[in-house]
Amino acid sequence: MTTRIANSKTTDEVQIRALIDDRAKAVRDKNVNEAISSIAPDILSFDVVNPFQQMGLDASKKRAEDWFSSFEGPIGYEIRDLSITAGDSVAFSHGLSHVSATRTDGGKLDMWWRTTVCFRKINEKWMVTHEHNSVPFDVESGKASLDFKP
Amino acid sequence: MTTRIANSKTTDEVQIRALIDDRAKAVRDKNVNEAISSIAPDILSFDVVNPFQQMGLDASKKRAEDWFSSFEGPIGYEIRDLSITAGDSVAFSHGLSHVSATRTDGGKLDMWWRTTVCFRKINEKWMVTHEHNSVPFDVESGKASLDFKP
Repeated sequence: MTTRIANSKTTDEVQIRALIDDRAKAVRDKNVNEAISSIAPDILSFDVVNPFQQMGLDASKKRAEDWFSSFEGPIGYEIRDLSITAGDSVAFSHGLSHVSATRTDGGKLDMWWRTTVCFRKINEKWMVTHEHNSVPFDVESGKASLDFKP
Repeated sequence: MTTRIANSKTTDEVQIRALIDDRAKAVRDKNVNEAISSIAPDILSFDVVNPFQQMGLDASKKRAEDWFSSFEGPIGYEIRDLSITAGDSVAFSHGLSHVSATRTDGGKLDMWWRTTVCFRKINEKWMVTHEHNSVPFDVESGKASLDFKP
């Protein structure tokens, strides 16, 4: 029984890691439908930039479309220090996300942020029901910290 | 069996809600030891302000001490739109946190931020192993959004 639980736990972590890898590839390829394929209809999203919060898959889809189309060519995207904690039906992950890309206006974006993703197993499939992406800010200046390097 | 699982799930959510309520009371009372009593030794914390990330209970304790002592008198603190999702051994919550307090320099702080808390059941007790607090920023100005009202 212990072995079975351990195996099941390992399987869940492997499934979630694959989900995260697939999403990262979808971001690099700017493939909106793939990028949102594991997002639950009722997702609550706290994003790096305004607005304060967004609810629902449609909002996530529009955000992905707008973000992907703001770049020229593919997006350089990686996740570092990824940690996954999975139970039987609830899981979460955290890590540092990095984007390196050229904007359509020619400007370069090279930026790290913090990512927490929360999952529920729905109909035997892990789905993202909550996501929190952010950078901290500097108390003195009130400015977001956009130049962090791990 | 279904009832038993349902009851267990309800119990977990009740325990986590009590943990969050106790922490909120500890913040209002500026009681450092109570505020960190449910934090796991290996917590990874993404906070509203710099630094980018902090690891370990000692860092959380110091942050609580510094933050509490920056205010005159008790801290007005509430959590709105709290949602708790609990599995057998892993859980997460999200909500909007609000602080209203007077700084030791006389300035007023009245601010909302986004909070995600991730839990693991360790030795039959729910513990916070990851926490993510933040505000988004405005792309044009690069400034953190400190004037959000829900």
